[in-house]
Amino acid sequence: MESIELLVIGGVAGGASFAARARRLRENAHITMIERGPDVSFANCGLPYHVGGEIPSRNALAVQTPQSLKALLNLDVRTRTEAVSIDRSSKRVLVRDLQSGQNEWLAYDKLMLAPGAAPVVPPMPGVDDSRIFTLRSLTDMDRIASAVQTGKRAVVIGAGFIGLEMAEQLHRKGIDIHLVELQAHVLPQLDAKMTLLLEQELRRNGIDLHLGQQVTRFQTANGTVQTHLASGKILEADFVVMSIGVRPETSLAREAGLQLGNRGHIVVNGFMQTSDPDIYAAGDAVETEDRVLHGQTAVPLGGPANRQGRVAADHLFLGDRARPYPGSMGTAIVRAFEVATGVTGWTEQRLQNAGIDYETVTVNDYQHATYFPGARPLTLKICWEAKTGRLLGAQATGHEGVDKRLDVLATAIAARMIVEDLCHLELAYAPPYGSAKDIVNLAGFAATNLRDGLVVRTDSLPDDPVVQLIDVRPKPLADAYPIAGAMNIPITTLRGNLDKLDRQRPVVTLCSFGKMSYFAARVLMQTGFQVSSFSGGIKANLDPGIPPKL
Amino acid sequence: MESIELLVIGGVAGGASFAARARRLRENAHITMIERGPDVSFANCGLPYHVGGEIPSRNALAVQTPQSLKALLNLDVRTRTEAVSIDRSSKRVLVRDLQSGQNEWLAYDKLMLAPGAAPVVPPMPGVDDSRIFTLRSLTDMDRIASAVQTGKRAVVIGAGFIGLEMAEQLHRKGIDIHLVELQAHVLPQLDAKMTLLLEQELRRNGIDLHLGQQVTRFQTANGTVQTHLASGKILEADFVVMSIGVRPETSLAREAGLQLGNRGHIVVNGFMQTSDPDIYAAGDAVETEDRVLHGQTAVPLGGPANRQGRVAADHLFLGDRARPYPGSMGTAIVRAFEVATGVTGWTEQRLQNAGIDYETVTVNDYQHATYFPGARPLTLKICWEAKTGRLLGAQATGHEGVDKRLDVLATAIAARMIVEDLCHLELAYAPPYGSAKDIVNLAGFAATNLRDGLVVRTDSLPDDPVVQLIDVRPKPLADAYPIAGAMNIPITTLRGNLDKLDRQRPVVTLCSFGKMSYFAARVLMQTGFQVSSFSGGIKANLDPGIPPKL
Repeated sequence: MESIELLVIGGVAGGASFAARARRLRENAHITMIERGPDVSFANCGLPYHVGGEIPSRNALAVQTPQSLKALLNLDVRTRTEAVSIDRSSKRVLVRDLQSGQNEWLAYDKLMLAPGAAPVVPPMPGVDDSRIFTLRSLTDMDRIASAVQTGKRAVVIGAGFIGLEMAEQLHRKGIDIHLVELQAHVLPQLDAKMTLLLEQELRRNGIDLHLGQQVTRFQTANGTVQTHLASGKILEADFVVMSIGVRPETSLAREAGLQLGNRGHIVVNGFMQTSDPDIYAAGDAVETEDRVLHGQTAVPLGGPANRQGRVAADHLFLGDRARPYPGSMGTAIVRAFEVATGVTGWTEQRLQNAGIDYETVTVNDYQHATYFPGARPLTLKICWEAKTGRLLGAQATGHEGVDKRLDVLATAIAARMIVEDLCHLELAYAPPYGSAKDIVNLAGFAATNLRDGLVVRTDSLPDDPVVQLIDVRPKPLADAYPIAGAMNIPITTLRGNLDKLDRQRPVVTLCSFGKMSYFAARVLMQTGFQVSSFSGGIKANLDPGIPPKL
Repeated sequence: MESIELLVIGGVAGGASFAARARRLRENAHITMIERGPDVSFANCGLPYHVGGEIPSRNALAVQTPQSLKALLNLDVRTRTEAVSIDRSSKRVLVRDLQSGQNEWLAYDKLMLAPGAAPVVPPMPGVDDSRIFTLRSLTDMDRIASAVQTGKRAVVIGAGFIGLEMAEQLHRKGIDIHLVELQAHVLPQLDAKMTLLLEQELRRNGIDLHLGQQVTRFQTANGTVQTHLASGKILEADFVVMSIGVRPETSLAREAGLQLGNRGHIVVNGFMQTSDPDIYAAGDAVETEDRVLHGQTAVPLGGPANRQGRVAADHLFLGDRARPYPGSMGTAIVRAFEVATGVTGWTEQRLQNAGIDYETVTVNDYQHATYFPGARPLTLKICWEAKTGRLLGAQATGHEGVDKRLDVLATAIAARMIVEDLCHLELAYAPPYGSAKDIVNLAGFAATNLRDGLVVRTDSLPDDPVVQLIDVRPKPLADAYPIAGAMNIPITTLRGNLDKLDRQRPVVTLCSFGKMSYFAARVLMQTGFQVSSFSGGIKANLDPGIPPKL
């Protein structure tokens, strides 16, 4: 077995996975890993949770050290060491020891670039204030943890996954939070209505949401930092955490002349080779094939990074047995207090923007049998290709079982299932875990009913007075939470009250969850009405803020 | 729309789903449902949980009543009404009102048979004792609940899914439990080693397990009922719950001349039609195609029953748009105290018995990031077709996240995925919910490593002294829980200690979880040793009873 010189730039997810897999495949390879920061292979997804104290021990996040990687995997790890430039013609990298300032050339047979991505910090007045933080490394985490010691109020800018985790964890520390988001809803990666429960949960916990608000500048005043919004509002706080996104760290790749994509990511083939076949790349800095539809995508998350690193090592050492990276889907989830919300594949918004001919349905049910204690509602939205029925994406929100449904749908999407296939997934059912017809089955039923023409759905309540809006909820519920312009005819009395409706005018049926309105629509459609059902029910469609409108 | 006369025999899962779907598809059908018992559409899966008080309200289990089904679905429901015989030539069913004793012929255009299955009660001496119960209906449940009022000790016979739920729930009521199982392990539907954690949990809670024990007879003595085992042991208790399995209720079908399968189930085609095309059947009484491999199967569970009823109604009313039932996989799960254990598809035992050329691997990991509080181990076993890699089955056991992994694998099996596909499932990851490499990915990695020849696995520790058994766990762990005959060389010191091993003799490596032993096997294989890794580690393979052998 001939030896080989491997050089890995970046010691966290993608780089560490590459090195570990390479070692298992080639015992006598010489593997050097360099990392700009002081830590390697740390649990970056855990950073917010140590700030909030939910992960009490900082050591828990330092998964490996240079010493442990030497002992376990025989890696030569150099931390606080930066790659300065790549000399592709002579296959060597100039590295600088950040402590001594000394430069050195390291030769490679194969190079792995896993430089990651850096938090975006837009150039705006006052942004260099020392109390404005971003979160990427253990060092960043320590800075924020230190600010928490004395701070009472914080502004979190960006309500994406990290921003929500930070808001939740800072709140655990008793910090008052302003959460500012440029888009009109939190988790702008998701469709608007799918974040309503999450927004309600944030407000319920006292997080001050500023949605659709642009930050224009920061200003220091009275020992605090002021965040100025375009609306004129000024948020005063002891510190600010900025989490508006990341940009790939690709200056090294660019200067080495490697091909970059439209948005600046490193371009790789299915085996994670860059435009130079002796240089691999993995993780947040690369773009890959989109696994769902055509085109390229960049998903800066730990799962893809780890698996990409592994693919590269396989390609290097396994020959024909290596299998390519199948592309990324963008599966992601976040917990904020008691609510979980997530996505896999494409959202309706993204499909719409791309001009894809799609269909969608939203269903509500409970995470397990309703008669079993602890049943809580869950909302699931799926999108599919209109012509073929192929699943293109799913979003879920609720208190429990959200991750499970996302995982089932991520698997279904990876398998290129059609919505009809969801009807007959045979999922694990016992009362503590599910229902005889799981919400995933229900989504399949609802989608198939649409495709079979059994129901016409509408996403919005009619504002045309010609349309008869029929609320089929039980009377006490309709009385307590009335819907403007709706006539209440409970589903159980509908058949006896058809003469109250005008057959010449269209009907929209509505209920809480979208199930009874479908039942009603079937009765009406078969008795000659032109009818559509309000998809997903009131629960999934109206702001469930205060008062509850169930 | 022409009217049609539908008659449904059996008012629970399959029958109720058929009726509900039929109503939605044909508003003017006349639908009559007859049910022998006093209740329709009740939550039979919830029965054990009301006995134990976890579901406090009995009403919660009575999902629908004849009145509510009339109001909601315009069904004519007759309870306490038994189908006596079917006259296929004139398409009518003789039914008997069990209260009045009166008989009546009911005509049908289409008939649905959903009679379900009855608990097996083997003919043995003393089995007619009034304190020996089975559990199928609300009435059965009430009888057991009544026995719980005064009882202190109970024998549960059969440690399948229902038996385990009953044991757990009776224990909640302070009843001392003897749990008797004919097979050598609980949940005989699963492979033996996958039930070790469950058995440990049952014992931890004070359940007295009698495994590999046959019941020979019952005897009344001193106001108690004695259960006699073949071993000579006598278990004395206030009552007995027998849950050794079910047999399909098919006397009506048999007498009507419908085709039955080898094991007495009603034979149906993909659209749930019996050998008489005007008679459908669904639920516990039918056998269907096996969804994983060739042949027929019968899965007496609520999920399949509900979906079969729906398929039949679709076939009747949707014409070309109806899609056939894809067969059953046998996905099932049970919670016993804090442990969940389940299966989907085929077990190793079943594959072995059927002479299928399969491979299998068992992996251990945690349900979510180890650094996040509450991480608990989880064991996952997968089986696949040796030649193609196609997934054939999965089993999982652990404290949390078991249902999720079973559902992902049930989806993967339904999609006819190969083990390589598991490597790149992009599952929802945030520290509270999963890991960057989920245990499902790990199972794919382990299976792929086997298929690629990177590792040789063994399921048993060697008893041949020529084999060098190397325990690569950290020294403190190896000292505390030593493995007989093993030499401890921690993985981190292995490379420096290769000279302690004899290259002429085979090596088996072992650790707690099966991961480090794989690392070690790779080092040894690449340095010229003949080595195999103990699959799944000690945790998954040795009785984790007392003392813990981790």
